[in-house]
Amino acid sequence: MTTLVFGHKSPDTDSTGSPILWAWYLNEIKGVEAEPVLLGEPNTEAAFMLTRWMLDKPEIISDVADDQPCVVVDTNNPAELPANINGADVREIIDHHKLVGGLETRGPIDITIRPLACTATIMIDKIGNDYSKMPDDMKGAALTCILSDTLEFRSPTTTDHDREVAEKLAADLGISIPDYAAEMFAAKSDVSAFSDAELIRMDSKEYEVSGTKFRVSVLETTAPATVLDRKDSLMASMADVAKEDGVDQVLLFVVDILNEEATLLVPNDLVKTVAKKSFGADASGDTVVLPGVMSRKKQIIPNLAV
Amino acid sequence: MTTLVFGHKSPDTDSTGSPILWAWYLNEIKGVEAEPVLLGEPNTEAAFMLTRWMLDKPEIISDVADDQPCVVVDTNNPAELPANINGADVREIIDHHKLVGGLETRGPIDITIRPLACTATIMIDKIGNDYSKMPDDMKGAALTCILSDTLEFRSPTTTDHDREVAEKLAADLGISIPDYAAEMFAAKSDVSAFSDAELIRMDSKEYEVSGTKFRVSVLETTAPATVLDRKDSLMASMADVAKEDGVDQVLLFVVDILNEEATLLVPNDLVKTVAKKSFGADASGDTVVLPGVMSRKKQIIPNLAV
Repeated sequence: MTTLVFGHKSPDTDSTGSPILWAWYLNEIKGVEAEPVLLGEPNTEAAFMLTRWMLDKPEIISDVADDQPCVVVDTNNPAELPANINGADVREIIDHHKLVGGLETRGPIDITIRPLACTATIMIDKIGNDYSKMPDDMKGAALTCILSDTLEFRSPTTTDHDREVAEKLAADLGISIPDYAAEMFAAKSDVSAFSDAELIRMDSKEYEVSGTKFRVSVLETTAPATVLDRKDSLMASMADVAKEDGVDQVLLFVVDILNEEATLLVPNDLVKTVAKKSFGADASGDTVVLPGVMSRKKQIIPNLAV
Repeated sequence: MTTLVFGHKSPDTDSTGSPILWAWYLNEIKGVEAEPVLLGEPNTEAAFMLTRWMLDKPEIISDVADDQPCVVVDTNNPAELPANINGADVREIIDHHKLVGGLETRGPIDITIRPLACTATIMIDKIGNDYSKMPDDMKGAALTCILSDTLEFRSPTTTDHDREVAEKLAADLGISIPDYAAEMFAAKSDVSAFSDAELIRMDSKEYEVSGTKFRVSVLETTAPATVLDRKDSLMASMADVAKEDGVDQVLLFVVDILNEEATLLVPNDLVKTVAKKSFGADASGDTVVLPGVMSRKKQIIPNLAV
């Protein structure tokens, strides 16, 4: 049976590109029949990567069948995976997030989790000397993943190793990283086609802090004004999204990639308290700027308090 | 704060030797202050390894403090770890068991799980070129772990890679594997000092099958007669152990390393049914021989039915 390779729901660039890269490796190098799939529509930056490197858009699946061979990448969280993931046969996990527990395997398998910024960086390490067999489209996918997850090395999640790997990929492809990253971020920033609810759910994870359930949404953009111009309708939409998704509050951080800061929307006193207790920020109006904040993983989640 | 490195409760050779090896690597190669510790008394084979290679017996700890930096090896199962493991700060996991879920980390960390027979094999891979800096006692510990977990390459968990690594270690140490393994297994088989309950709990894991909770105990020995001579009192002890440990039934498999077979003790009709449904074996008396069965992980647990 074909092995399905997938990342998390609401696929971003790494959860779109890494499954494509790993399915290539399994098919071409390891001789394992594999197919990359998606758990939802890729975001605009991921869609740009597919077009730029002429990659087929993977099929979108809604669940996995019992006993389906799977490789899980870029997450180890069952909440971000198909509902039947523990009924499937997970054969390998490659990830760079904290272990949350809940995912189970049938036997001992290969699991590689590393504290690097990007899944694709780990994959390049695992590919090792077979790197020489990687075609340009696979190198392009890997480069896009790393520049996306590191925000062109600006995010505090960036390690020296992510940077080295990206620079090697760019050199081999003859690509200028600043020019290419600007194209990527422009694609990511083009969110005009999305509804408020879609924007809120686009890059979003649920976390519980002191009994309060949050949906922590991040929008990384080089054009924050285009999002902030919609702040009233976004804030109005938050209550509906929270209700539909069974959380207490949506937190929306608009990350300005170039200025290296986040703007948190402050629709009510609860979020005002979160801004104060988490970041020491006094929100007087309906937004508050958090200088230097770019990473949900490294800066937002570890500080979240209410 | 010193990082504590430990394996599972009821430490066998791999859960005694691998923490010692990894603490050496952290201290001497990575410059991280680390100390191997044990979660209980090592078994007789592990004790033999300590004596043979003149290794200090690690301190036995009963639990870990909040925020204690830890490296967990040879398990990822919270039930086999200190009660407060999720209050501690787990910094790394190296293991060769299936992912069971439940262990959590504070952030993204290094996790390496491989479908190999032995944790020490994975460590030798991770140590890489620093292998040249390993002193003989560390090579001896690693060799003992691999020969123990593979039952000198007889267990079906053995991979070519485990064998290659063990043969390199033995060659570098100038040791004959058959002679050394015979010494190890003689030490493991000397169980005269243990009570029946201690024997039952020595190498034992809990599993639930169709709502029935089992304690699946394995005794690997080159002298099965010395255990089977005690079968009446062992069977009498099973009910007490089951009650104390909150399980429905103890299953005791006496693995004959040299003849490559297991003898299952059959104290009642439930275990008779287990023998039939799991292994197609008709138990007419109070024991039943299962030819070729040597591995709990590969042969007993996957077939367990009631």
